[in-house]
Amino acid sequence: MHSNLWVEEKFEDFLGLKFKVEKVLFSGKSEFQTVDVVETKGHGKMLLNDGLIMVTERDEFAYHDMITHVPLFVHPNPKNVLVIGGGDGGTAREVIRHPSVEKCTMVEIDGMVVDACKAHIPQTAGALDDPRINLIIGDGVKFVQETNEKFDVIIVDSTDPIGPAQPLFGEAFYRDVFSCLTDDGIVVSQGESSWYALEIQQSLLKVLNAVFPNNYLYSFSNLTYPGGLWSFTFASKKYHPVNDFNPARVAESGLDFDYYNAALHSAAFALPSFAQKGLAGLICNGK
Amino acid sequence: MHSNLWVEEKFEDFLGLKFKVEKVLFSGKSEFQTVDVVETKGHGKMLLNDGLIMVTERDEFAYHDMITHVPLFVHPNPKNVLVIGGGDGGTAREVIRHPSVEKCTMVEIDGMVVDACKAHIPQTAGALDDPRINLIIGDGVKFVQETNEKFDVIIVDSTDPIGPAQPLFGEAFYRDVFSCLTDDGIVVSQGESSWYALEIQQSLLKVLNAVFPNNYLYSFSNLTYPGGLWSFTFASKKYHPVNDFNPARVAESGLDFDYYNAALHSAAFALPSFAQKGLAGLICNGK
Repeated sequence: MHSNLWVEEKFEDFLGLKFKVEKVLFSGKSEFQTVDVVETKGHGKMLLNDGLIMVTERDEFAYHDMITHVPLFVHPNPKNVLVIGGGDGGTAREVIRHPSVEKCTMVEIDGMVVDACKAHIPQTAGALDDPRINLIIGDGVKFVQETNEKFDVIIVDSTDPIGPAQPLFGEAFYRDVFSCLTDDGIVVSQGESSWYALEIQQSLLKVLNAVFPNNYLYSFSNLTYPGGLWSFTFASKKYHPVNDFNPARVAESGLDFDYYNAALHSAAFALPSFAQKGLAGLICNGK
Repeated sequence: MHSNLWVEEKFEDFLGLKFKVEKVLFSGKSEFQTVDVVETKGHGKMLLNDGLIMVTERDEFAYHDMITHVPLFVHPNPKNVLVIGGGDGGTAREVIRHPSVEKCTMVEIDGMVVDACKAHIPQTAGALDDPRINLIIGDGVKFVQETNEKFDVIIVDSTDPIGPAQPLFGEAFYRDVFSCLTDDGIVVSQGESSWYALEIQQSLLKVLNAVFPNNYLYSFSNLTYPGGLWSFTFASKKYHPVNDFNPARVAESGLDFDYYNAALHSAAFALPSFAQKGLAGLICNGK
């Protein structure tokens, strides 16, 4: 137990986010990245990959609600879902709350992340033992190249486009994602921050536009990521994320959420003007 | 010019936000607080009161757009506007962009804030020389007690409820605000963060509910405040912030905004579930 231990995420050379640490629970170095789990004073347990904050117990529900329930409430009957990345388990945990989901395949490249979260962050990883979750430790890029399965919804729960996640932001990957989606399939992807990473959002939406007819970006508030305003992209073969969303289904589901709700679903697609301007021409329906 | 100068805002004892500083432009101590203006590396010029970040050139438009244009586009014909606080000038700058506004009275308690911003942050304070702005260096609490004027919109652009801004979160102040609003008047107030300060939001909304029939909270993304997701309260004698808002007026105004837009106006009132639950019973229309 250290009296003055802090973890600091640096953003470029001009910003730092510091969190008080009570205890280091795990530190390892996998084939892909460093993996740390710490107990913080203000945010519960925290997972860091390569020194970047991935999840904290205090706010993980915001990210996991918004990456999962937006596509799963737009698709009318999601049965087979694929999660790429998401090693902490929080996304898969939310996916299997939908009774229509028969199977959730999760392909995480780094087994150390899964093991560390299973050992230290059961809040997110505890659901990974559910029989509907098919956990594969492997490369998501290869998986979508090789699988013959078809998925209703694919969720790309990746880290930043550096290190192991870089191919998850490229066109070749999304052509394979398109191929293994059903005819009314949806893919939602971790889409960075409009405040600090508008160029990455532009780049990702350009890639998606080369492959999918319908492409959107929606935002939510991530307490512990630099910029706070975080985004997911929404690309689909058929559905509009708001016009094809039936808010009554959320109430009918009986599910209770701490972040997501039906009003917020649609509101999340209303972007600040600077993001609208920066992404002009890249957000489009039915090309 | 220092090679490794940073400014750090601490939040409680578990969070720190650090910004790289290129140059200290002003440091003073007024009767009320310390006042600093620094040139940062990533966020332009930054004003700090008592070490808390007030505005940065990079993101100030988000705060000033959302505190101003939401009430000014709900009220059908705002002519006389009062700003309490807002010493950096950004809120008054946005108020006078509305052609219906004939006069904007701004009552800021700390002349040093205004002077420092006039000297170093013309991006926000430059508008304060406009003849429609009636700048008063004085106590906003006393001003609303004593004025005989009636205002269509009052904007309480305060700091946190510690130090000089504390009375701006109390019922006595809001009774006076009610008295000096016209019969269809609106008051919008700085309302803290749902992530870290839900108790302050509850307390402020309780005060507003004791005075006003219609009370709401809306949110936006503030890049440089701890928590990111920031809020304003909206209290009115008559108008509903969404149902009485005509989106066409935004396009008709011909005004261009980097944060505010008609879709975001309504979307901002859709709160995350944890905030909805925490503020249950305090957000209400037409008691």
